[in-house]
Parts: sequence; structure tokens; C-alpha cells
Amino acid sequence: MKREYLVLHGPNLNLLGTREPSVYGTETLDQIDARLLAWGQEHGVAVRTLQSNHEGVLVDAIQEAYGHVAGIVINAAALTHYSIALRDALKGVGIPAVEVHLSNIHAREEFRRQSVLAPVCVGQIAGLGWLSYLLALEALERRALEAPAT
Amino acid sequence: MKREYLVLHGPNLNLLGTREPSVYGTETLDQIDARLLAWGQEHGVAVRTLQSNHEGVLVDAIQEAYGHVAGIVINAAALTHYSIALRDALKGVGIPAVEVHLSNIHAREEFRRQSVLAPVCVGQIAGLGWLSYLLALEALERRALEAPAT
Amino acid sequence: MKREYLVLHGPNLNLLGTREPSVYGTETLDQIDARLLAWGQEHGVAVRTLQSNHEGVLVDAIQEAYGHVAGIVINAAALTHYSIALRDALKGVGIPAVEVHLSNIHAREEFRRQSVLAPVCVGQIAGLGWLSYLLALEALERRALEAPAT
Amino acid sequence: MKREYLVLHGPNLNLLGTREPSVYGTETLDQIDARLLAWGQEHGVAVRTLQSNHEGVLVDAIQEAYGHVAGIVINAAALTHYSIALRDALKGVGIPAVEVHLSNIHAREEFRRQSVLAPVCVGQIAGLGWLSYLLALEALERRALEAPAT
Amino acid sequence: MKREYLVLHGPNLNLLGTREPSVYGTETLDQIDARLLAWGQEHGVAVRTLQSNHEGVLVDAIQEAYGHVAGIVINAAALTHYSIALRDALKGVGIPAVEVHLSNIHAREEFRRQSVLAPVCVGQIAGLGWLSYLLALEALERRALEAPAT
Amino acid sequence: MKREYLVLHGPNLNLLGTREPSVYGTETLDQIDARLLAWGQEHGVAVRTLQSNHEGVLVDAIQEAYGHVAGIVINAAALTHYSIALRDALKGVGIPAVEVHLSNIHAREEFRRQSVLAPVCVGQIAGLGWLSYLLALEALERRALEAPAT
Amino acid sequence: MKREYLVLHGPNLNLLGTREPSVYGTETLDQIDARLLAWGQEHGVAVRTLQSNHEGVLVDAIQEAYGHVAGIVINAAALTHYSIALRDALKGVGIPAVEVHLSNIHAREEFRRQSVLAPVCVGQIAGLGWLSYLLALEALERRALEAPAT
Amino acid sequence: MKREYLVLHGPNLNLLGTREPSVYGTETLDQIDARLLAWGQEHGVAVRTLQSNHEGVLVDAIQEAYGHVAGIVINAAALTHYSIALRDALKGVGIPAVEVHLSNIHAREEFRRQSVLAPVCVGQIAGLGWLSYLLALEALERRALEAPAT
Amino acid sequence: MKREYLVLHGPNLNLLGTREPSVYGTETLDQIDARLLAWGQEHGVAVRTLQSNHEGVLVDAIQEAYGHVAGIVINAAALTHYSIALRDALKGVGIPAVEVHLSNIHAREEFRRQSVLAPVCVGQIAGLGWLSYLLALEALERRALEAPAT
Amino acid sequence: MKREYLVLHGPNLNLLGTREPSVYGTETLDQIDARLLAWGQEHGVAVRTLQSNHEGVLVDAIQEAYGHVAGIVINAAALTHYSIALRDALKGVGIPAVEVHLSNIHAREEFRRQSVLAPVCVGQIAGLGWLSYLLALEALERRALEAPAT
Amino acid sequence: MKREYLVLHGPNLNLLGTREPSVYGTETLDQIDARLLAWGQEHGVAVRTLQSNHEGVLVDAIQEAYGHVAGIVINAAALTHYSIALRDALKGVGIPAVEVHLSNIHAREEFRRQSVLAPVCVGQIAGLGWLSYLLALEALERRALEAPAT
Amino acid sequence: MKREYLVLHGPNLNLLGTREPSVYGTETLDQIDARLLAWGQEHGVAVRTLQSNHEGVLVDAIQEAYGHVAGIVINAAALTHYSIALRDALKGVGIPAVEVHLSNIHAREEFRRQSVLAPVCVGQIAGLGWLSYLLALEALERRALEAPAT
Repeated sequence: MKREYLVLHGPNLNLLGTREPSVYGTETLDQIDARLLAWGQEHGVAVRTLQSNHEGVLVDAIQEAYGHVAGIVINAAALTHYSIALRDALKGVGIPAVEVHLSNIHAREEFRRQSVLAPVCVGQIAGLGWLSYLLALEALERRALEAPAT
Repeated sequence: MKREYLVLHGPNLNLLGTREPSVYGTETLDQIDARLLAWGQEHGVAVRTLQSNHEGVLVDAIQEAYGHVAGIVINAAALTHYSIALRDALKGVGIPAVEVHLSNIHAREEFRRQSVLAPVCVGQIAGLGWLSYLLALEALERRALEAPAT
Repeated sequence: MKREYLVLHGPNLNLLGTREPSVYGTETLDQIDARLLAWGQEHGVAVRTLQSNHEGVLVDAIQEAYGHVAGIVINAAALTHYSIALRDALKGVGIPAVEVHLSNIHAREEFRRQSVLAPVCVGQIAGLGWLSYLLALEALERRALEAPAT
Repeated sequence: MKREYLVLHGPNLNLLGTREPSVYGTETLDQIDARLLAWGQEHGVAVRTLQSNHEGVLVDAIQEAYGHVAGIVINAAALTHYSIALRDALKGVGIPAVEVHLSNIHAREEFRRQSVLAPVCVGQIAGLGWLSYLLALEALERRALEAPAT
Repeated sequence: MKREYLVLHGPNLNLLGTREPSVYGTETLDQIDARLLAWGQEHGVAVRTLQSNHEGVLVDAIQEAYGHVAGIVINAAALTHYSIALRDALKGVGIPAVEVHLSNIHAREEFRRQSVLAPVCVGQIAGLGWLSYLLALEALERRALEAPAT
Repeated sequence: MKREYLVLHGPNLNLLGTREPSVYGTETLDQIDARLLAWGQEHGVAVRTLQSNHEGVLVDAIQEAYGHVAGIVINAAALTHYSIALRDALKGVGIPAVEVHLSNIHAREEFRRQSVLAPVCVGQIAGLGWLSYLLALEALERRALEAPAT
Repeated sequence: MKREYLVLHGPNLNLLGTREPSVYGTETLDQIDARLLAWGQEHGVAVRTLQSNHEGVLVDAIQEAYGHVAGIVINAAALTHYSIALRDALKGVGIPAVEVHLSNIHAREEFRRQSVLAPVCVGQIAGLGWLSYLLALEALERRALEAPAT
Repeated sequence: MKREYLVLHGPNLNLLGTREPSVYGTETLDQIDARLLAWGQEHGVAVRTLQSNHEGVLVDAIQEAYGHVAGIVINAAALTHYSIALRDALKGVGIPAVEVHLSNIHAREEFRRQSVLAPVCVGQIAGLGWLSYLLALEALERRALEAPAT
Repeated sequence: MKREYLVLHGPNLNLLGTREPSVYGTETLDQIDARLLAWGQEHGVAVRTLQSNHEGVLVDAIQEAYGHVAGIVINAAALTHYSIALRDALKGVGIPAVEVHLSNIHAREEFRRQSVLAPVCVGQIAGLGWLSYLLALEALERRALEAPAT
Repeated sequence: MKREYLVLHGPNLNLLGTREPSVYGTETLDQIDARLLAWGQEHGVAVRTLQSNHEGVLVDAIQEAYGHVAGIVINAAALTHYSIALRDALKGVGIPAVEVHLSNIHAREEFRRQSVLAPVCVGQIAGLGWLSYLLALEALERRALEAPAT
Repeated sequence: MKREYLVLHGPNLNLLGTREPSVYGTETLDQIDARLLAWGQEHGVAVRTLQSNHEGVLVDAIQEAYGHVAGIVINAAALTHYSIALRDALKGVGIPAVEVHLSNIHAREEFRRQSVLAPVCVGQIAGLGWLSYLLALEALERRALEAPAT
Repeated sequence: MKREYLVLHGPNLNLLGTREPSVYGTETLDQIDARLLAWGQEHGVAVRTLQSNHEGVLVDAIQEAYGHVAGIVINAAALTHYSIALRDALKGVGIPAVEVHLSNIHAREEFRRQSVLAPVCVGQIAGLGWLSYLLALEALERRALEAPAT
């Protein structure tokens, strides 16, 4: 059975490519997802993506991943800054997660510089556009290959 | 086709008129909505209202408004103070929005004085009871009449 | 005898329309006052306006209003943020007051987000240009009509 | 008709017993609920329990309790620290509520020491594991027995 | 030999029932102590109580408890908020302690929301009047029964 | 020539006795001034009083006092909390001043607890109603009698 | 029976007159007490004084005053800044108290500007040396004479 | 017609040379003004000076300068730290202004280190006594000579 | 001529692999550099690395890179948190830079969560060990390939 | 007559060697005192030690030392962080004091890093176990030998 | 022998004129230095300039100036905000120093508004471009001429 | 081979004895070093000292000490307060270090009370002049003698 990765997109990321292109680029979320799925096929692993504007739906998805998902790539968008529920979910299931951001959150409004998720993630990749997602998958996959038995 | 306005009511506003009348008055949310709809008929515009206790539902509604709604009147209630997701949604769709509050939030608990939505709204009306909603609609309509082409 | 409203303009608002039009529009204070007076005539109430760059003059005006003014609309401009003397005057005379701002103070510099007047006002209207004043008058008038005896 | 109590479990509490046993013990949420129901039968009162990862669902449940529930025991988990919506719901319905926590939140991360719910609850019980729930029910029941008519 | 519990009352709790009944009820400290002793007899354990307005006396009492007391119930009153000496004493002797408060300290003045004792206690029970003490004893006794050998 | 004292009343104190009697009592400022003048006659010293809503007028009065006034009693009211200009004036003329307040400013809103004048005054008397003024005069007079030559 | 006043001196005030005369003057505490007792004889009231370096002793004294003391003058010295126990005692007995300080605490180190006692006292007199005590007694006595029945 | 500069002195600067010479030197404000006027004559430009203890007067003066003054040198003294009205006036008229201070405000009390005027001035010169004014005039004149047409 | 990348290692990174292996792994800095150089050869670009414990040396290196380096990968280590000089250098030369960290700085001590460099970098990669460097190079190279002419 | 030193041990230090040996070592307070007395005999000076859990007792001891004690070594334990009374006592008697701590308080909880005593002590020695005391005595003795006449 | 002045330029100022001309102008550091040297020749004094990206080099230069340099003009650039070492060096050698900045640091990012050097400098000149340096030299020279003997 | 200790002196300590003698005494750094070397000879251990104004040089020295130095005595002077690079170096090499200060940093400016080095040092000795160094060496030597094998 293939190794499986879960990519989570938080609130408003479904607007990507159609709103505020000067900030977020012109690529749509579907196009990004397509790139990630292509990467998965290339590497022989399963990549599943999910977008939701509902905190609870994202928490449910993380819980459901327990036992069969090898790594989570999460761009929680606005929820990054206040959803302790997402944090507890990630910590609870213990699946290695990489936090990603399209823009460089450290160069934006003060409140966007704080991530309540960061302390329970393996690492963070920010500011590299859709590449942030891809590099996160690569990092998780490399970790998995180096330590397949754990 | 008529110009359309969306009025959003956040968590617990459905309790209006039945709970804490000393703070919020005895008028129910249905009665307020009826007044707003009447105002719409009077001015020949469509007014649609929505109440939800779910942040995600409100975010969805804002996104869905894109392209056909001329203005948003939003009383996010408790979510006013922490829902960056609502803020991002309002900013993302770029529809002019007026933030309203029944009570004067600036005269209440410290935490209620801060609105994370304010910086992405056109303006704020607080403390005037259900009139806050009506004045917000009037302000949006005047703006629309003055600059119909933009 | 007609019901009377007092409209107070704080420091530098006399520059309106001639300076920084990109922020404050091209309308002069005289033009705004004319609109408010017209509204008064239309509604059969007296509207008196006063602009001053002197905190003390504004405090005097509020005190003088006691006993014959039915409502105060106040745009204290810079004084909004530090004049506890204005706050005490408003509280002292007990006349219902609505705080207004031309621009959305909640979307500007940090120090402009705090109003020392807000806790003693009935409500706040911000960000709607000269309409902020008009809506404030309408709100006060409606309140007066609903509770004429108090 | 029996007196009824509502026990609310917030996000991720459904993971109890299966994740992080060193922190939260090995008992599952079902086992805890069974204990609480047993206590209810023993005391001749109805105990209903609900777990959700969705803030809105919990708000709905509190609103729905109005008029027939005698007391609420709430472990809001992560939502304890930011859900002003839950706070407003509890305040709105006015049902006596006791806030409970399995672990001693006052001995954990700084952000877990602050509860936005505490000011609208009757009291708080923390750090006593599942016993926190049971003692909360006992406290509510005693209060009800002492002041049945109010 | 009976298991022994120590109940400590901090400064001014001897005024209970005679001062500020609207806040603290009409029951005197002697009446509360009597209830706790009765509970002890009922459960076959020794309950000893001590009230003092002197921080040092309370520290001495905690130290003296070492080796023969199975659990401490402590309502440090005002000292809750600044007595690091009490905290060090509780930590030093290592006897399981439950912090109790008659009123809901989380709903009072800002400075009463912080407990320097909380991080070294097993848990906290607040807002349930004298029942706070009783539930604390029950919690300690249950813990003792479940893990008698430790 | 008689020793002379200057009593300064800040903004809105002219409302005394006519507004908010529950907070400030029913005595008017004229009545208080009469008491202070009577005290002056009794002690053979001159007492001059001045009330103004204008910061600049109060600063001018302090400067003018230089060289002939033996002590200043100042109730700066709202200006207490932000008028560094008054502070610099008091410091500049070097006349011993006692800061007074009718109400106990330390028991009111947070912002009223800070006095920018306090560090340049000899002392502060607060919370004793009009007696605050009288005791301040007595304190200054005693100081003058004890050290007449300085 | 004579009206009775209690004067409390906090930690280290027994050093007065012998240490740091440049700050606190050369008068000893005994000399100050003698003046206060003389004032009492002059006015036909009883004045009792107590100095202690022990917080608990001062709390005990306040409690003991209940029922027979008409007013408390308290210079809590260092305890002013952290003894919530003293605050609770003063609030508990409900005897009118005036807080006094020899030096102007508002002109000293930052931490000395905050008094935890102030919010439960009638007023505060600071910076007038031993006269601070005398004026406090006079203020209490005047209050008593004006409202003897309460 | 000559180029004109306006030099503004804030509250209490009229005391210069007569009070606190150890801090501010022995030169009077008249002597400083004389030096600045002399500099003006030397450079063929008009220098006008104004001192006021009234914030409003200074605001009026800045407004009046619009259209005929080439630069403003402002030592707002105490108002430096809180007069947002002066800030708005300077920003409103858009005349290049240099903020000056006789003493080094950055080496004094904490509250003197913050200038609300600084962000709307071209620059700041502090700590060089009356020379601060002279250098400010020189800087403005050089700027004017380099860019006469703007 | 080959495209060139500069990889900068800040203070103490030369200790890698020999100290604190539990935190930083067992790989030495030379081994990491070798991997990065290999990646360069593979992709036909030049990779140059530099480690220094001296802030000034790193600033010099960034300045020297101007005009011939296509991208900078910088792990400033301790300097991340306070070297505004490094920040100004990166901003000054305007070369796209990616900030990297071996460990997840967002999950460590509070002071390590703040990066003064972040606001002037394109993005940040943290917590992925030596892979952080590699992914940064890949991100820069992709950017260069997509926009070779700028 | 011998030179005399006073060594003060604050609350809970009597538990040393019997509780928390991993933090404080296995040596008892008696053993430490014995070492200090031995050092005294060796150097021909008197060393007196006192431990108390009562702040007041320690204040009394410092006051009593006036006139005959040449130096104080004080480990105030928990009181280090809030006892302004101890601070005032040390400042009042003016005896050179060295503050000591067994553990490195600067590497512990945030609240333990602040000492209210430090500003009135000659110096501080922390983190060297019982040696902290010994080195403090040596420092005081050296100072005394170098300046015997003062 | 000529009077000598030392002009210090901190990190990245060597980039002047070649980078970010919109912020810092098009003049190079060499051109500025040339102007300052010309001024020196004009006034018959020696002007020496030094730029370094290394904090230590600047500290060394200040120390070396002791005994032969009459004044220091220092633009510490980024080091302005954190180099306590530079502050201690300036304070240590006691040579009068004027802090200069090309841009108005008070109108930039929050962290640039704080200067750790300011409290040990005679004064500060900011926002006047290269003129800031020249005016600083003039101020130092005037001071020297007025008080040549000190 | 002898046990070796490294004594590090930070920026500006080379000025000792020649500048600010009222604060730091008249002894030069060479004289202090001579005392420390003498102590070394007396105890049969090697003492090496190094002073630098360059953070990087001090970091290099700490790194170089790895493997042959038994203890470090470090007076980082100004760098104490911001050099996380020094902190990381000390932590990286793991050699026991004692932080020393000539003056009592806890009684000086606020910013000098914080040491970023303290949490990675064994202990801290402050305020005892050159004796601080000597006592630190003694403490390290005693530790070494007691645990020679580790």
C-alpha cells in the first residue's frame, strides 16, 4: 500500500487565483492541488488534499488521518493564528506535520507573525508560494525514507 | 436586476429579544430582519439576511456573495474579536462592508473593544441598537448611488 | 420650541476639503455644515455647529448645552484620543452624544484606534465621510422621537 | 419529569484514552460518559453528553438547552481559551454552568491558564481527571436541591 | 491509623459569615469546618483544619504535615496571589494539594485571577462556596483509595 | 503683607453640585470656594481661587503666581492624567503644591490612577471631598509656619 | 464612651527618626504617636496606635477593631504595595480607613506608586510627613461628626 | 518678497533663563528669539516667533502659516508628548517642519523620549540648547535653496 | 558564467555535529556544505558557503555579493534575533534571500521565535535539519529559472 | 570584640537536604550553618544564623542587627521576589548585605529572576550551592578588612 | 595643534548612494566625507572619518580617541538600536558626542525609534540627510569655542 | 598537566581604572589580571585571560577552549544583555561558566538587569568588584576538586 500524505488548506484559500492576485499570485487552488498530486504520482505516494472554511472540519480531518497518513502539510491560513483546536488535534494524533504559508507571514501584519500551530509542527516553510507545499512534501518524504520503520 | 445587500448576524444573535433584554432590548432578530427587508422594498433593493453560530458558514456566505452583492452589513458578535477568517474573507471578496454592533462595544469589557474586522471594513456603527443596521444599509446605498459605475 | 442638536468639530477639521483630499475628500467643513443644517430644516429641528482648535472651547460648549440641547454629535478629531476633559464634560452634562469620524479610525495608526470618549457616548459611527454626521443626527432624532418624555 | 444536566466536551476530547495517555490517562470519553450517566441514574436525574470539534455545534447545543436543562458541565478544551461565542451563549441562556478540565490548566502553557468562559460560569474544577466532571455534576445538583424554586 | 487531611484557611477567612454575606454567604468558618469534620467521620479519615492571618504560620503547618498527612486542601485567600513562600512549601513537602476558593476568582478583579499556588497543586476548585472544600476532600480521598500504596 | 495661596480647579469642576451628585456631592464650587476663603480669613492669609476648562489658562495662572504665592492647591481634574504642561509649569515656578482630588482616584478607572502631576507636588490628598482642599491648605500653611525663612 | 481611632504603622516605621533622616525626617515614631494622642485628647476621642513588622499582626488588629473603632489611619509602608491580605481585612470589617504616607509615594520608584489598599480606602494622604496622619484623623473625625448615626 | 520661517515655542518656554537654569541655561527666550531674528536678517529671510501655553493657539498659528511660510521650527515642549492636535495641524498644512529641543529628551524621563510630532516632521534636533533652533533654521533654509521651486 | 548562490552560516554553526547532537544531529557543517556543493554541481550552478562568528564578516560578505550572486541562503543562528545590521545589509543589496534554521525556532525559547531578518527575506524554512538549506536553494533556483531576466 | 556577621535564611530553607535533593542537594541547613560557623572561627569573626518562615521575624532580625553587625548574608528564598518589607529593612539599617541563592535563579521560572532585594544589596551570588554563602562571607570580610574604619 | 573631530559611520553606510536611493539619496559616503573634510579645512580643525561594519572596530576607534579628540559625530546605523557596547564606550571616554541619522528614525519602523546611544550623547540630529553630520560638527565646534578650557 | 581556567573580559573593560573610577574603582584590568594569575599560581592551576571589544573574538575563544579548559569566568560587560551568540557558544561547548560583574547590575538601569547569558551559566556573582572574579575562580576550582572525574 502506498504511503499517504494529507494536505490541508484553511479558510479562504479556495479564493486563490481569483482574489488579490498581487499578493497570492494567479494560480488557483485546483492548479496547486494538481501539482501536488502530480508530485505524488511521480514519487509513488498518495496525496490527498482538503480545503475548508470550517475549523471543525479540519480538526475532524486530522483526527481521521490517524493510523494511515504518514505526514500532514497544513496551511491553516487565518486559523494559524488562533486555532488551538487545530494545534491540539495535530499534537493528539502525533503525525509529523509541516506548516506552510504562501506568503512570508513574518513580513506582514504583526498578528500574522504568530502561529499557534508552529510549536507542534516539525517545521515551517513560508513565503515561497505554491512551492512551499511542494518542499514540505519533499521534506516529509525524505524523513520517511530515512526512517521508514518508525 | 435589483442591487443586493447581505446582512450577516454572528453567533447568539438569534437569542435577541428573548435573553438579556436589559442589554439588547426586547426586539427579536426576526423583527429586526423584517425592518431591514421593509427598508429594502422601500428603496427598491434586495436585502438578504443570514444568522449563524458557525464561523465557517459566515465565511462561506461572504465568499458566495462575490460578484452579485453590492454591500455587506456584518454584526459578527463574538467573532468580531477573534475571527481572522472572517476578516480574510471580507478582504478577499472586496465587497464594501460596514461593521455594526447593537451595543456600544467601546463601553464594554476590554476585549470587546478590539475588532479584527474593522481594518478591512469601510466603517463601523455601534451602540444604536437595530438602527445600527439600518444606518449601515443607508450608508452603503448612498455610496452605491454616488459611485454606481465602480 | 424646536428640538436642538449641537455638532462639534475638533482641531484641524476646519482644514477639511483644502488639505489632504485623498484622505478626507474635497468637501469643506462649511459644505458639511450646510448639509447638516439642511437636514435640520427638513426635520424641523435646530442644528448648531461649532469648530474649534481649543479643547477648552469645546468643553465650554458642551457645558453650555446643558438644559436645552437634545443631543450632541461630536467629531473630536485629535482630541478623541487624549482629552479626558471632553469625556468628563460629556459625562457631566449627561446629554446623549454620538461620536463620529470621517475616516475609519480602526483602520489607521494604532493610537487612533483608541477613543477616550467612546465609553461615555451612546454610540460611534466611523468611516462614512460626512455621512457619519448625518447618520448620527438621524440616530439621535429617532431616539428622541421614541422616548420624547425622558 | 427528571431534572436534566448537559455535559459538553469540546474539540479533540474524543481522542481521550487513545492519544497522549501520559497526560490524559487511559480512560476513553465513552467510559467517562458512562460514569456520568450512571451517576445520573443513581441520583434520579437525566445526564446528556455531547462532544464536538465544531464551535458552532456547541453553541447550538447551549442555546437549545434553554428552558429544560438545569445545569451545564462544560469542558471546552481548546475553545476555553478563545471562544467568546461559547461565552456569550452561556451568558445568554443563563443556565448555571461549571467549567471543568481534566488536567490542571493552571500548571500548563501560559495560554492555557486563561479561560474566556470562566467569568460567566458559576465555578471551575480543574486537574482532577474525570472526577472533575463528576464533582461538577454533584455541585450543580446540590445547588438545585438547595434552591429548587429559583 | 486513620488517613489524615489538612484543611488550611488563609487570611480573613475567619470573618466568613459575619462580613460581606452577599459575597461569601452567611455560613461561618466554624460551620464549614464542622461540615468537613463530619465528612471525615463519615469516611473514617481524620480532617484537621487551621486558619491563620499569618503567612509564616501556614508555611509552618504545611512543613509540619510532611510524613503523616495524605492531602492538603488549601484556600489561601489573599495569599493565593503573591505568597511564593506557600508555593515553595507545598512543592517542598510534595503532599498532593487541591486549591479551593469559595467564590469564582476567575470572575473577579484581574489580580484575583492569578494564583501563584496553582502550578504546584493537583487541581483547583472555585466558585462553589463551602462545597469547594468538600469536593476537594472527596477528590483527594478518591485518589488515595485508587493509589493507596504510593 | 499677607501670605497668599492659590487654589486651582481644572476642567468641569464648575459643574460641581449640579451634576452627578452621587459621585461628587451636592456642594457647588462656589460653596467650596467660600469655605476656603473663610479659612483664609480665619488664618489671616489670602486665598485666591480659579477654575478653568482651558489648560493654557491654568498654566498661565501658575506662572503668574511666581514670586508672590506661597503655595498652590491644585485639583487638575481630567488634566491630572495627561497635562505635562501643567507639570512643567509647577516644576518651573518651584512653588510648593499639593495635589487634591474630591473622589478617591485610586479607586476609580485605571486611567484615573495615574497622575502626571504627582511627581512634582509635595503631596497628594484624595477622596475626602471638599475637605481635601482644606487639609491641603492647612498642610501648606503649617509648612510655611515651620520654615518661614526659606 | 469615647469615639476610638486606630492608627496602624507597617514594617520598618519603627526605624523612623533614626535611619535615613534625609528622606523621613528626624522625628521618631514615638514622637509622632505622642502628637496623635495629644490630638485625641484635644478632641475628646481615643487614639490607639500600633506598629508591626508582621503582616499577620496588622490583619489581626484590623479584624479586632470591628464593632468599636470608628476609623482607621493606616500607613502600611512596604505592605502597601503587595498585601492583599490587608486589603481584604479593611474591606471585610468595613471601617472607614484613610491611607497615609510620610513621603510622596507618587514621586518615588515605580513600584511604590501602586497601592493595593487604595481601592478599599476612603482616601489617601501622601507626602506631608507626620501631618499626613493628623490630617487623616481630622478627616475621619469630621466625617463622623457629620454623619454620627451611620 | 522674503522667504518666511515660523518658530514656535510651546508651554512654559517663556520661563527660560529665569527658572531651572541648571537644566535650561541662563538665556531667556527673548535672547534666543533675538539670535534667531538676527540670523534671519543675516540670511535675508523673515523669522517670526511665537510662544504660547495654549495648545489651540499653536494649532491656529500652524494653520495660519499655510501658503506663505516656508518652514516651521517647533519646540512644542510638554505638548511634544501628547498633542496629536499639533501633529495633525503640521500634517494638514504640509509645511516642512523641524522639531527641536533644548535638552536631550532621549536622556530624560521615559515619557519625554516619545514625540508624537516626530513622525510628521522632516527631522529632529535635540540637546544642543538654543543652537538647536539655529541649526534647524539653517537646515530648512538649505533645503529651500536646493529645491526653491517646489 | 554560472549562476551563483551564497550560503551563510552564523555564529557557532561550526560546532555542528560535535556539540549537542541531540538537538542538532551528528552531521558536521562540512558535511552539510558538501551536500550543498554537490547539489550545485548537479544543477550547474555555483554554491559558495561561509561560516563566521563575527557579525561584521557576514555583513561584509552580503555586501560583496552585490552584482554577481543570484540568491542568498542564510542561517544567521543567534544573530537572527538581534542583528539589524544583517537585516540592513540584506535589504541594501536587494538579493533574494531565504532564511533557514536547522531546528524549529518556533518551538523553542520565546526569544528565538522572533527573527529580525524575516521581514526582508523572501521566505523562511525552519525545522527540517540540513534539508532546510537544500530546499532553500531549490526554491531560489526555481524562482531564478522562472524569472531569469529580472 | 569580634566582628559579627548575620546569615539569614528565608522560608522553606529549613527543608534543605530532606526535600527535592535533585534541585537543592543533600546537605541540610544545619550542615551549611556548621560550615559557616567553622569559617567564622577560622577567621576570628562571629557568625550568627537564623532561619524563619515568617517575613516579620526576618525584618525584626535585620533591625536588631543595627549597630553591632558588620555584614548580612541573606538568602530570602521566596521572599526575594516580593518582600519590599525586607528591602526597606535592609535599606533602613544600612548594613552591607550580600544576596545569595543556592540555585541559579536566573535560569529558573521567570518570576524567580526578579529580586526586589537586589537594588539595596552590595552584590549577588547565585547558583553555587552552599558555597554561595561562604563566598558572600568572604566578600564581606574582605571589604571590612580593606575599610575597617568606616 | 588643530582641534580634531572623529566622524563614525556604522554598518552598511558604505552602501550609501548606490543602494535604496529613494530612502537615502544618491550621494555616496565618500562624497559626504569630502564635504565634512572641506568643512574642517574651512574651520581650521581636523576631521577624521571611519566606516565599519564591525561593532568592535567602532568601539576600538572610540577608545583610541580618548585624550586627543574634541568631539565625536556618530551615525551608528543599525547598531544604534542594540549596541550597548558602543554606548559604554562613548560613556567611558567621556568625549562629547552627537548622534546623527540621515533619515528621520522617529518616522520609521518602531524598532528604529529607540536609540541605546541617545542617553550618553549630548544631542541628536535626525532626518536632515548629510546635513545632519555637518550641523553636528558645527554644534560641537561652537561648544568647543564657547568652553575651550574645559 | 595543570587544570586551566579561562577568564573573559568583554567590551570596554580595558578602560578599567582609567575611566569612571567612581563607578568601577581605580584598579586597571592588568592589575586585576595579575591578581587572578597570582591566585592561579597559588593554587597550582593555569589562568588565562582575554579582553576583547569584538563579540566574535570572544565567541572564538570560547569555542577554542573546548576540550582543555576546566571552567570559564566571563564578564561579558555590555554583551551580557544582548549577545545570544555568546550564550550559544557557552551552551555549545558545555564548559562550566560563572558570570561575573564588577558592579551590582541589579541596582543599575533596567536594561542592565537582564542577562541573556545567565540561563546557561552555573551561577552569577555581581557587585563585588574584582573580588567577583576571584570568588568565581574559587567556586569553579572547588567544584572541580569535588568532582574531578567528570
